[in-house]
Amino acid sequence: MESIKLDITKAAQFLNPGTVEAYAPQVAAAQQALEKATCPGSDFLGWLHLPSGTTSEFLTEIQEVANTLREKCEVVVVAGIGGSYLGARAVIEALSNSFAWLVNDKKNPTILFAGNNIGEDYLSELTEYLADKKFGVINISKSGTTTETALAFRLLKKQCETQLGKEAAKDVIVAITDAEKGAARAAATKEGYRTFVIPDDVGGRFSVLTPVGLLPITVAGLDIVRLVEGARDMEKQTSQDVPFSNNIAARYAAVRQALYAQAGKRIEIVANFQPKLHFMAEWWKQLYGESEGKDLKGIFPAACDFTTDLHSMGQWIQEGERSIFETVISVEEPNRRLLFPHDDENLDGLNFLEGKRIDEVNKMAELGTRLAHVDGGVPNIRISVPALNEYYLGQLIYFFEKACGISGLIQEVNPFNQPGVEAYKKNMFALLNKPGYESESKAITERLNKEN
Amino acid sequence: MESIKLDITKAAQFLNPGTVEAYAPQVAAAQQALEKATCPGSDFLGWLHLPSGTTSEFLTEIQEVANTLREKCEVVVVAGIGGSYLGARAVIEALSNSFAWLVNDKKNPTILFAGNNIGEDYLSELTEYLADKKFGVINISKSGTTTETALAFRLLKKQCETQLGKEAAKDVIVAITDAEKGAARAAATKEGYRTFVIPDDVGGRFSVLTPVGLLPITVAGLDIVRLVEGARDMEKQTSQDVPFSNNIAARYAAVRQALYAQAGKRIEIVANFQPKLHFMAEWWKQLYGESEGKDLKGIFPAACDFTTDLHSMGQWIQEGERSIFETVISVEEPNRRLLFPHDDENLDGLNFLEGKRIDEVNKMAELGTRLAHVDGGVPNIRISVPALNEYYLGQLIYFFEKACGISGLIQEVNPFNQPGVEAYKKNMFALLNKPGYESESKAITERLNKEN
Repeated sequence: MESIKLDITKAAQFLNPGTVEAYAPQVAAAQQALEKATCPGSDFLGWLHLPSGTTSEFLTEIQEVANTLREKCEVVVVAGIGGSYLGARAVIEALSNSFAWLVNDKKNPTILFAGNNIGEDYLSELTEYLADKKFGVINISKSGTTTETALAFRLLKKQCETQLGKEAAKDVIVAITDAEKGAARAAATKEGYRTFVIPDDVGGRFSVLTPVGLLPITVAGLDIVRLVEGARDMEKQTSQDVPFSNNIAARYAAVRQALYAQAGKRIEIVANFQPKLHFMAEWWKQLYGESEGKDLKGIFPAACDFTTDLHSMGQWIQEGERSIFETVISVEEPNRRLLFPHDDENLDGLNFLEGKRIDEVNKMAELGTRLAHVDGGVPNIRISVPALNEYYLGQLIYFFEKACGISGLIQEVNPFNQPGVEAYKKNMFALLNKPGYESESKAITERLNKEN
Repeated sequence: MESIKLDITKAAQFLNPGTVEAYAPQVAAAQQALEKATCPGSDFLGWLHLPSGTTSEFLTEIQEVANTLREKCEVVVVAGIGGSYLGARAVIEALSNSFAWLVNDKKNPTILFAGNNIGEDYLSELTEYLADKKFGVINISKSGTTTETALAFRLLKKQCETQLGKEAAKDVIVAITDAEKGAARAAATKEGYRTFVIPDDVGGRFSVLTPVGLLPITVAGLDIVRLVEGARDMEKQTSQDVPFSNNIAARYAAVRQALYAQAGKRIEIVANFQPKLHFMAEWWKQLYGESEGKDLKGIFPAACDFTTDLHSMGQWIQEGERSIFETVISVEEPNRRLLFPHDDENLDGLNFLEGKRIDEVNKMAELGTRLAHVDGGVPNIRISVPALNEYYLGQLIYFFEKACGISGLIQEVNPFNQPGVEAYKKNMFALLNKPGYESESKAITERLNKEN
């Protein structure tokens, strides 16, 4: 198999010669700290050797549970928020037909996502839609008490039991949760659901290669053996034994930190030229934003779908503040084949493209964009992916994870915590008079009275 | 009817007292320049009095054409890119069932979007999906030669004619294009398609209230009379006769420019707490990004869906670089009613929410987030929308347009051009050896040879 490739030449040209290479010692120290678990957040390094530690027996167990859901369900609702849905959604959308939801002749159950918002309309419309469907639920929550996911699960569990009966519902509800503790574990034990464990040492945003991602991905009809294989190969390719000059995770981490710390670039835009990668970028935004955005620093992660957004964000990128750099994910070979059609009239003047593959035009749009943006002062990093399939997505996922760990450490933050995520929840619980939050409730009420 | 409201108090507190009000003279000058057409880009001010200038006869004509498409088509493909699809998609997704695509019992045709990318997989999958469908096409392009849209239209026109016959295809293909010039106009004249005009004085990103937006929105079963009515009421409420203290477009323009120019905030994040508004934010990103992002300046427009993205971007927003401000679009009243369910076990400990409307929890999440982010150093602007319907979306659209015009002028750019969008196209055509680009082709080939 080939491998994904990284080209940083069009970014390095915005830095003094040797700048990227000068990060090699810091990167080596970060790699070492990850391996020896001497870095901040060292309790959350389970992702580091997860691919090589995943057995085929374990994947078979996931496939068996997935097959039950696939056989018994028209629709499977994945209930989870943040890292508990983004990875699965990213892989599923990248590898599914663009119109999968519209296709009636279903080989695969429809995968829906819930438990990631508090939308009254959304949940009402969801329960209405499911009213005449055979549906199952994958409940993904470490604690089982995350408001968004617990709310959705309450609604879906009740509806599933009402529609199928309590016994049959047990076969189509699966919990992915803590090994022992928490509400979701307790409910699963009591009801007798099939369960998988979210390892204690893997944070949400690094969990796509645990059952959190693997089960929904399998239910969607995709091949997790190949996904893990790709990740495993990338684990080798980015290990600390691979020298800096050949280590794409090390180089990506180094160049982006150089652009941030030395060239004043504050925003990284991940751009694709393949619309199916939209949610890969959403997954990436969490991975990097949540890992680096702390201690009043961090590159702001943004995303674009090209050429689509060249007609919306393109103007800003070409001529706005020179505070950005771009990371383009390019897929070398499409999965389908379609040629640019002939037109007798040629009123649009595009017959010069006749007979070319559509993707050839897309590639020239990509190259043209790269040159234009670089000329406009936007450093450009290019990640090329040989094809969209499970194997290369596995590579891409592990590549981004490894580079993220290194990048956070050379930025001198703890890349594995997320203390800021609690702030809104604490206020929300105080405002909602949650038991145990009495003093916070009193304080926030007084504050609001004073402010109004 | 009520009106959308703007609260800037939690943003103004990050500025010296009186800072926002001090913009009043600049805003007044900008308003005057718009009215008198003395500003840069004055050839593109057709949007300014578009709502009040739209007649009911014109809307009836749009409805008639829409009805033909609704009667004859299971699927209508909207071919357009940038401003030629974002507004329609934003309104349609905001007002449709979250699972509209999955519902078989269709009162409305399925609306698909194409011509906004150069995806070989996407177009191949689209044509495959349409193979057994009665489908129509709305071709939206001023020139008819925009590569993405012209490509999709070539494929769709041919397929439609093959499936329906050339005569019947004419009834379900509509062109929205220049009044006289261009390839799409020429094709429509030759084939005898129904057409609507994109006015010369309305740029793409300001065109949602022309047929560009109105026709697809009507085909989706929505009420454009109410949409235009809302926009018309907002046209009055934001006119230059309304004093700065009461003029929400003026105040929004002023506070965001103050945050940018005086408080060093470089990024504006538009956040919703209603997932259906996702594409309203995409539309907003083009409107503001393309209007302001030039001359090496401009606020970087970003967007989040909350609470969803509080579990991905939330950490960065709470504790990353203090270079951001937030503009929250809050919908006061959901369209549906669903209560937080009881659970006998209460393993998740959420029975204290039992019987509350889901939206009440969402509103406390919103308030809790606002307080947390403000405490964390993020200025907060709040736009409250009484309900999600055509009328209030009409208000919201015009509000953003008017504020954008003012904002660009006080930032001292031409808010109505987009010179940077051409750069990638020029390179692409050179790379593809488009006739007429011979010297550019030669130059770019030499450049690439030298660089490699």
